[in-house]
Amino acid sequence: MSNKHVYFFGGKSADGNGKMKDLLGGKGANLAEMCLIGLPVPAGFTITTEVCNYYTANNKQYPKDLRAEVEAAMRQTEQVMGAKFGDAKNPLLVSCRSGARVSMPGMMDTVLNIGLNESTLKGLIESTGNERFAWDSYRRFVQMYGDVVLDLKPTSKTEIDPFEKILEELKHERNVHLDTDLSVKDLQELVKRFKKAVREKKGKEFPEDPMEQMWGAVAAVFASWNNERAIVYRRQYGYPHEWGTAANICSMVFGNMGDDSGTGVAFTRDPATGENVFYGEYLINAQGEDVVAGIRTPKKIAELEKEMPEAFSQLMSVRQILEKHYRDVQDIEFTIQKGKLWMLQTRNGKRTGFAAVRFAVDMVEEGLITRDEALSAGRIPPDDLNQLLQPIFDPEAKRKASVLAKGINAGPGAASGKIMFFADDAEAYVNKHGKGVILVRRETSPEDIRGMQAADGILTAFGGASSHAALVSRQMGKVCVVGCQDLVINYDTRTVTVKGVTLKEGDDISIDGFTGEVMQGKVATKPSEVVQVLISKTLKPEQSRVYQQFAKLMEWADSVRQLRVRTNADQPDQAEQAMAFGAEGIGLCRTEHMFFGHIREMREMILAETSEARLIALAKLLPFQREDFYGLFKAMKGYPVTIRTLDPPLHEFLPHDPKGQAEVAKDMGVSVEKIAERVKSLHEFNPMLGFRGCRLGVVFPAITAMQARAIFEAACQLKLEGHTVTPEIMIPLVAFLPELQAQARIVREVAEKVFTEKQVRVDYLIGTMIELPRACIAADQIAREAQFFSFGTNDLTQTGLGMSRDDYGSFIRHYTEHDIVPRDPFQTIDFDGIGGLMKIGVEKGRHTKHDLKIGICGEHGGDPDSVKFCHAIGLNYVSCSPFRVPIARLAAAQAALGK
Amino acid sequence: MSNKHVYFFGGKSADGNGKMKDLLGGKGANLAEMCLIGLPVPAGFTITTEVCNYYTANNKQYPKDLRAEVEAAMRQTEQVMGAKFGDAKNPLLVSCRSGARVSMPGMMDTVLNIGLNESTLKGLIESTGNERFAWDSYRRFVQMYGDVVLDLKPTSKTEIDPFEKILEELKHERNVHLDTDLSVKDLQELVKRFKKAVREKKGKEFPEDPMEQMWGAVAAVFASWNNERAIVYRRQYGYPHEWGTAANICSMVFGNMGDDSGTGVAFTRDPATGENVFYGEYLINAQGEDVVAGIRTPKKIAELEKEMPEAFSQLMSVRQILEKHYRDVQDIEFTIQKGKLWMLQTRNGKRTGFAAVRFAVDMVEEGLITRDEALSAGRIPPDDLNQLLQPIFDPEAKRKASVLAKGINAGPGAASGKIMFFADDAEAYVNKHGKGVILVRRETSPEDIRGMQAADGILTAFGGASSHAALVSRQMGKVCVVGCQDLVINYDTRTVTVKGVTLKEGDDISIDGFTGEVMQGKVATKPSEVVQVLISKTLKPEQSRVYQQFAKLMEWADSVRQLRVRTNADQPDQAEQAMAFGAEGIGLCRTEHMFFGHIREMREMILAETSEARLIALAKLLPFQREDFYGLFKAMKGYPVTIRTLDPPLHEFLPHDPKGQAEVAKDMGVSVEKIAERVKSLHEFNPMLGFRGCRLGVVFPAITAMQARAIFEAACQLKLEGHTVTPEIMIPLVAFLPELQAQARIVREVAEKVFTEKQVRVDYLIGTMIELPRACIAADQIAREAQFFSFGTNDLTQTGLGMSRDDYGSFIRHYTEHDIVPRDPFQTIDFDGIGGLMKIGVEKGRHTKHDLKIGICGEHGGDPDSVKFCHAIGLNYVSCSPFRVPIARLAAAQAALGK
Repeated sequence: MSNKHVYFFGGKSADGNGKMKDLLGGKGANLAEMCLIGLPVPAGFTITTEVCNYYTANNKQYPKDLRAEVEAAMRQTEQVMGAKFGDAKNPLLVSCRSGARVSMPGMMDTVLNIGLNESTLKGLIESTGNERFAWDSYRRFVQMYGDVVLDLKPTSKTEIDPFEKILEELKHERNVHLDTDLSVKDLQELVKRFKKAVREKKGKEFPEDPMEQMWGAVAAVFASWNNERAIVYRRQYGYPHEWGTAANICSMVFGNMGDDSGTGVAFTRDPATGENVFYGEYLINAQGEDVVAGIRTPKKIAELEKEMPEAFSQLMSVRQILEKHYRDVQDIEFTIQKGKLWMLQTRNGKRTGFAAVRFAVDMVEEGLITRDEALSAGRIPPDDLNQLLQPIFDPEAKRKASVLAKGINAGPGAASGKIMFFADDAEAYVNKHGKGVILVRRETSPEDIRGMQAADGILTAFGGASSHAALVSRQMGKVCVVGCQDLVINYDTRTVTVKGVTLKEGDDISIDGFTGEVMQGKVATKPSEVVQVLISKTLKPEQSRVYQQFAKLMEWADSVRQLRVRTNADQPDQAEQAMAFGAEGIGLCRTEHMFFGHIREMREMILAETSEARLIALAKLLPFQREDFYGLFKAMKGYPVTIRTLDPPLHEFLPHDPKGQAEVAKDMGVSVEKIAERVKSLHEFNPMLGFRGCRLGVVFPAITAMQARAIFEAACQLKLEGHTVTPEIMIPLVAFLPELQAQARIVREVAEKVFTEKQVRVDYLIGTMIELPRACIAADQIAREAQFFSFGTNDLTQTGLGMSRDDYGSFIRHYTEHDIVPRDPFQTIDFDGIGGLMKIGVEKGRHTKHDLKIGICGEHGGDPDSVKFCHAIGLNYVSCSPFRVPIARLAAAQAALGK
Repeated sequence: MSNKHVYFFGGKSADGNGKMKDLLGGKGANLAEMCLIGLPVPAGFTITTEVCNYYTANNKQYPKDLRAEVEAAMRQTEQVMGAKFGDAKNPLLVSCRSGARVSMPGMMDTVLNIGLNESTLKGLIESTGNERFAWDSYRRFVQMYGDVVLDLKPTSKTEIDPFEKILEELKHERNVHLDTDLSVKDLQELVKRFKKAVREKKGKEFPEDPMEQMWGAVAAVFASWNNERAIVYRRQYGYPHEWGTAANICSMVFGNMGDDSGTGVAFTRDPATGENVFYGEYLINAQGEDVVAGIRTPKKIAELEKEMPEAFSQLMSVRQILEKHYRDVQDIEFTIQKGKLWMLQTRNGKRTGFAAVRFAVDMVEEGLITRDEALSAGRIPPDDLNQLLQPIFDPEAKRKASVLAKGINAGPGAASGKIMFFADDAEAYVNKHGKGVILVRRETSPEDIRGMQAADGILTAFGGASSHAALVSRQMGKVCVVGCQDLVINYDTRTVTVKGVTLKEGDDISIDGFTGEVMQGKVATKPSEVVQVLISKTLKPEQSRVYQQFAKLMEWADSVRQLRVRTNADQPDQAEQAMAFGAEGIGLCRTEHMFFGHIREMREMILAETSEARLIALAKLLPFQREDFYGLFKAMKGYPVTIRTLDPPLHEFLPHDPKGQAEVAKDMGVSVEKIAERVKSLHEFNPMLGFRGCRLGVVFPAITAMQARAIFEAACQLKLEGHTVTPEIMIPLVAFLPELQAQARIVREVAEKVFTEKQVRVDYLIGTMIELPRACIAADQIAREAQFFSFGTNDLTQTGLGMSRDDYGSFIRHYTEHDIVPRDPFQTIDFDGIGGLMKIGVEKGRHTKHDLKIGICGEHGGDPDSVKFCHAIGLNYVSCSPFRVPIARLAAAQAALGK
């Protein structure tokens, strides 16, 4: 821990700077940075994240020098602001704000107007000449402090906030409707009653000493790092709990001092579409929290030009300075106090996938950033590309749909689903049905995070493009429409009424995040623009700006990445899709999918009681397999095609219910008992660890021989027709070298026979899946036979962790929520464990064959962090599902750039 | 490959010696050695095992210098024997015998009397003056050569041997019953007909050229290395196929030259009981094969003293020379030709476990060998100790049993089971029922190997203590009675009749391998002498010689071994047994076995719907667990007791059938539907990889807390009563450090609470099972929390190989029979794979804590080869079931001695 705990900023100087996010948090670092580049920032100081961690680890004690450092920084602040903290004449008020290394919107606490008491209140009245403003500020301060620091919160979901209750009572007594209708006297009465409530509920007086107030706020901010929603949020995004938050003490400036004052938030460009327009909103005569909370719907930023031309022009200049300085789109908060602009915050703006791509490509073209910078994960998290590939509403269907209302398009995309009004209902529905919910709320708050995560889309009645709902949805890549004021939501009856139409919980609704439209029922979707250009060819490249920018980005990514990207596909159409998305081969063709298409013959093969009968059934399957491979090879135009021989346990092909068994029995002309008996005899206690993979081919070599024949007959035919074919035959579930040797021998023998028959030769490889821990440990032996390795990380994760993907649901959520595992190991490779096995496999394999080609074909091949890991351990390629191919290409580029 | 391919021996010189078994095979090396120490050996030469391997690898070609070397060696042989190979006057005849590095009795081929043809036959008649002997030898030669080299064998099991058929036909024509009744003319006719059969079936003449005959025999011997039964045999004993066999060309000497000739086999001590008496049998006027084949029952060796006092005295002197020279019990073959003794073979004698222990202890006491030598695995394979621990017949029950007959006690022990007459029936029965067969045969042959392996005991009507049945049974440690001549076995009716009693296939029979008694029905057993002394205390140490020798050997083993030996036990009586067998602690107490004893409360806990209800049910289980631990700790007298917290999936405690569910529902006062639903919800696709192990305790910490409380309450109580207690708490199925941390925290908290309540502290350790591949890979992390590791090699093998112990039966036999795996990985650790993971675990664990205590508690802990592996990788202890403890102690000693 360093000696310096407090960093001053203000005027045009600062102790810290924008690079010091780890120590000062994002907010603190950027406040310092803005001071250094001459922007108007209310002076203040940052107490470091290290102090937060010290405070947590040392039973809520502070480092001993802290108090002196804080007092010194407060003196500097007073000097710059020309006011004095706690002074009865010209009092300085401050806010205390949390600020972690990354933005965690709304997750932690803030206290405003610290320093107000009976004595400074008078000074505030004197210095502002506005008694009502002063009393209203005091009233707000006592309420907020009581809530955040003194913890006077509702104790249950149904209970009303105790301060709101007092407020409502007083309004009722005075017979007024709006807060603003309350007189100064009323506000004084309110403060009295608030303080009384504190006394009664907490058994102590509301603190009058400004320094005591400040320290209370600092403690509350530090404690809020470990509140439940912050923990859940960090877990969701994989941020370590060890980071801690800084506490920022900032001089207060007031947007609520009258109609020459205001407050707002803005993005330097449109964070939803990426368009290069100033994008934001503001409220006149309001405090900052009012805009974000989404309770009052603010005005669009463009209107500020008319209302306060001078302030607007200052803001436009700030916009330019910031983008040029930070070389990225900024998300800013500002306050105008009596015509003067103050900057309260800047940070890189969260953005949709659409915006991320457009920002990056535009900024390269504007000369602001390089191509390598454009590709960085900070600018474009690879998963966000997914948004460009997701379906959009079919215009035809939309035309016929009943558009109920239009809100603000805050998160692009098309989403349909059942209306749910409460986050926990949304979560429960999705846990049960997998997907299909639109969360409909007046506004959202941090408590709703998990429900938002579960929902396909979010629709709110209030709030603007910078509201909580909008910010969080964009970050999560959810379809989102906010501020749809025509919605009348009744939480009690669980209904929403729009222009006379009333929808209940569970009714279908559709929202268009591109246009803000809200439609009744489920509206049909169609492919995204990118998919229309690449796959369905219903759009020409020049008709789609989104496609063009996407294509440019992909081209840049391809020029730097070292990992090849293949796809997992077993149908010609899938293969073609993947090629369109940039796949450079098939990394995994699961032949069992083909067998399911010829289930009758497959069952005959399984039920065969002699090897002769098995051969006859296999002979029937041969032409189907040959045809399948022919189509696939042809579609892949000479790119390598990795074909995995039969893998799943045989009982997967047989029916397990009496009815199904009766059908099969009839179909095959054998007794039901025989089918039932065979199914029973194939039953396994742990099929994942049973008679499957190469074990099938080792015990029944005729199956492997048939598959090999189908592959080589198809390949030879194509070669004779003038095509190039590159088959790579992959033997699954190998643990022991002799398994691979036995299977390879069969494949080679069949190959030679077919080459002789067809009078043509085809180059091919024989390799193996590395999907068992033993295969990693014995990779040096296995590499003696294998011409390539492909990590099957699904099974490697299952066996390496002893964790079945079908069964781990009963404990994995407990595990992730209690930090037993850093994240779901089936989504991102468990680097320390499974990754360790992979490293051993790579090292040992290449020890035997130094240029051994190694890839990955588990689901992890499309997960960006896993792709980067694969790059780091020296794999040659990743393979993933067709729609993940662009994501893997970008992730591979980021890995190569070390970003 | 070396340049020298042929090693001469004869007179008192030899090119090779007894140490050259790898190159010359056991037989060849020992023939050379016997020459060197001056024993009478018929001269000859050995063609090396390298030539066999060359021949196999090079498409049946020999190294180019071989022919010249063989011819030179033949000249030397002729010189020593004073006769000439192929000579018409004084012909030398030779045998060609296989001989691998280890003895593989009856598995490979032999040809006798090579060199006989129409011309040399005359010389033989002249030189021996015995026309009938010469013609009988020729008849035998043609028959044997036709069978072995020319491959004129029956083509199906029902077909009669073609030569035997001709012989029977001729005897029928001549109206005689015995071979010996045939005249010289008849024998001449027989040879004619044999040669005609060869011509007809093989399309070529029987070879007349002696050298051609010899090369044919050599090729047949080399080829027999790869016949099916030899392969099966090697696989069973784990001998590599790469060894190859040598071919030994030895001058023929004849035991069938009249009543002054004979042949026999003997052991220098009794190989069944170990007693120091000369033990063997012989036949007058016979060739060696007649003794081993078990068709004529030979005389006991003691009778030779009366029949041929001079030859017997020579033999007794050879016995002493050999034991002194080889320092181990020898198994010899000899022939007496016209009164002169010739030694045909010597090798270390195969022995029962009883004999092995007695030989070793006696020889140390005789000053012949050292204690370290006595302990070597070559003398006492640890598994053989098992025989000393197996039950014997209860004398009380035996007295009442009907003793049908008495044979020769060839393999000690007590065995009861169903009568089976055919090896494949025995195998099939055991595959289905697990055990319980007595194989009853006239005699056994190498084809019966698998049936013998499957059977609990072997009973034959013919053959002596050196017959195939006796030799193989002793090697396998099977109970065996041979030469029980009162048995009349009818293979057709599948019955055996003994003194008027007829038993059918499937009837129960009992055989006593100590006494040779055969009894009807199943006779009750009682513990072995060793067990009677140690466990049931019904015998005093001084009453049992077997026990005393066993104890002495164990004491020697303990004085050299470095590995500690613990036991797997969860009941006080098991623990006491294991202590008596020398266990130094409990390495695995499975607490779930205790839960099965209180299944009602366990089910209540599982079916609990709230944590309150679960706590109530756990509180009911607490006193039971405490009592169980109290008993176990007390029994272990201060030795460490490793207690594994709850491990199996919860559904194992619930009934899966409707009837059982109805009972539970009634019992617990809940609806059947609820029980059924809960059972269903706990169902898992791969329970081995599911919600079990520490995952239960992590999600339901109250279970771990209850178990910890039971442990510490019991431990504290015992300590207060003045006992020493050393609990080691072991958390199962840990993959991630935080799992162990979470469980350890609970255990420590409970411990502190109990210590405060009881006002006493108990030292304890917290460690973990290492039974998942990830635990090995992340052992450095896990060791930060773990105070000890214990490898759970059952689960580590299941996950590391992706092979379920419950399901691998469908392919493992194919795997072992086709050399895909060297042996069953659940019996002996898969050194390259699972062993590799263990090594990583040890290295990483000790990297974090250099003195980390590491053990093993999987079934492998009682497997001698696995114990040696554990020693090699530096484990501190092994843990196994009580009856395996002595075996593990001996194996640990052998590991420490590097033997």
